[in-house]
Amino acid sequence: MIITTISELRNYLKAQRAKNKTVGLVPTMGFLHEGHLSLIRCANAENDVVVVSDFVNPTQFGPNEDYETYPRDIERDAKLAVAAGGDVVFYPSVTEMYPEGSATFVEVEGNITRVLCGASRPTHFKGVTTVVNMLFNIVKPDKAYFGQKDAQQAAVLMKMVRDTHQNIELVVCPIVREEDGLAMSSRNTYLNDEERKQATILNQALAEGEKAFLAGETAVEKLVSIIADKIKEMPLAEIDYVDIYDFPSLTEIKKIERQALAAVAVKFGKTRLIDNRILREE
Amino acid sequence: MIITTISELRNYLKAQRAKNKTVGLVPTMGFLHEGHLSLIRCANAENDVVVVSDFVNPTQFGPNEDYETYPRDIERDAKLAVAAGGDVVFYPSVTEMYPEGSATFVEVEGNITRVLCGASRPTHFKGVTTVVNMLFNIVKPDKAYFGQKDAQQAAVLMKMVRDTHQNIELVVCPIVREEDGLAMSSRNTYLNDEERKQATILNQALAEGEKAFLAGETAVEKLVSIIADKIKEMPLAEIDYVDIYDFPSLTEIKKIERQALAAVAVKFGKTRLIDNRILREE
Repeated sequence: MIITTISELRNYLKAQRAKNKTVGLVPTMGFLHEGHLSLIRCANAENDVVVVSDFVNPTQFGPNEDYETYPRDIERDAKLAVAAGGDVVFYPSVTEMYPEGSATFVEVEGNITRVLCGASRPTHFKGVTTVVNMLFNIVKPDKAYFGQKDAQQAAVLMKMVRDTHQNIELVVCPIVREEDGLAMSSRNTYLNDEERKQATILNQALAEGEKAFLAGETAVEKLVSIIADKIKEMPLAEIDYVDIYDFPSLTEIKKIERQALAAVAVKFGKTRLIDNRILREE
Repeated sequence: MIITTISELRNYLKAQRAKNKTVGLVPTMGFLHEGHLSLIRCANAENDVVVVSDFVNPTQFGPNEDYETYPRDIERDAKLAVAAGGDVVFYPSVTEMYPEGSATFVEVEGNITRVLCGASRPTHFKGVTTVVNMLFNIVKPDKAYFGQKDAQQAAVLMKMVRDTHQNIELVVCPIVREEDGLAMSSRNTYLNDEERKQATILNQALAEGEKAFLAGETAVEKLVSIIADKIKEMPLAEIDYVDIYDFPSLTEIKKIERQALAAVAVKFGKTRLIDNRILREE
């Protein structure tokens, strides 16, 4: 079932709540792939009702980013979401979410939104927290599901939920990969054949970093070099960042003591891909 | 009943919700006066359960403002709140609301937070929206009550609720005044005898402006002069602003066509007082 208005969704959820049903939310920007579907399946296993939001959120795109061209296919999304266990696909218009004159933003300040993707996308996380806060207010879910693929996003949202006292459990699900290891992403469709082939280097480089870490290397500078050098083997790869931070605080570290996030962003032509590993002693 | 922790308040409210009780919230910074009590009475008439929050919110004070000296008296507040129909006084510590590392803010951007009090208190409304958003997340009230005394605050919060899709009805209650017309305020206790006497000029000046408006004057510039000239009759009065804006949009106007907010902020010694009138055809 596709619902396009907030009031309709509220009425539907009110009826479910009256029957004591629990509600899980899977926020997406649509063009669903196996990564999203794994979140929906997980939500389906843990909640009575699953709402999948399908909204390409304009405020999380920078002025020269791919908001206009971001792939969209609601009919396909709705079929996939329902097949994976979604009960409702919430597909609002931009003016439904941001009525004329909208000017209220939720922002997590500090390094957590300035490092990694925050450096090259300075307004990105402000857009993410603003729209996810709206979705939380509309759906009032018991649990909400996010992919580890966007590990910084998950860290930022965990901080938002804690700081604003939202009574919602965030569940972070593992990265889903293609057979050759490329992390699933709606943006993979932008890649030409040669770029697609070379893009597997992200996962391979992170695997090398992880291997070195598990073999005893804990110096961040050394691990970053290992990952970056591997990525540079691919002539089309243009590194945006390779970095390691404490997770989920995303504070700077010189040595990995607890657990850390190794994250990379690499451009192939005009397409910017991200991937990551949580590094922790096993 | 005084509750000091978020988890205790959540448990209490969960039990009330299970009995299908409606919940009204009256956010205050404590040191309750008749203005607050009128909000509590109104909330009590319209809801099954009334939560009065009593929290001097540090983030809405500027660095040189009166956060440290703001009057506090929880025992007195609790008695007054209960007598007026409050069921729970929520009295959290600063670290309960802002645990270490808190860095998430809710901000209504644009002129609405830049004019009037926003001009001399540039971070004030960001602090207000941040803490009220927290209280809304914690209490999840059906209705929340604010005084027209803080008319700009009410306008900003109405915008926040609309923009962030909070399903909460805001109720704005009339200004309560002392017998001589001075608007009730916790900060009135700061005034010495002579300042207290001269402070009645705020209400008198607004009354003159209103009289001129009701007699047919709609030019904002003219009405502002009438109000400001009256205030200047008092030697201790130092005007911060006298201004008129469309209400509740707080957009600039030259003539009053619908309804407008005439608002003043005036310092007497170190004490800054505010007052206002909604101007509308009767």
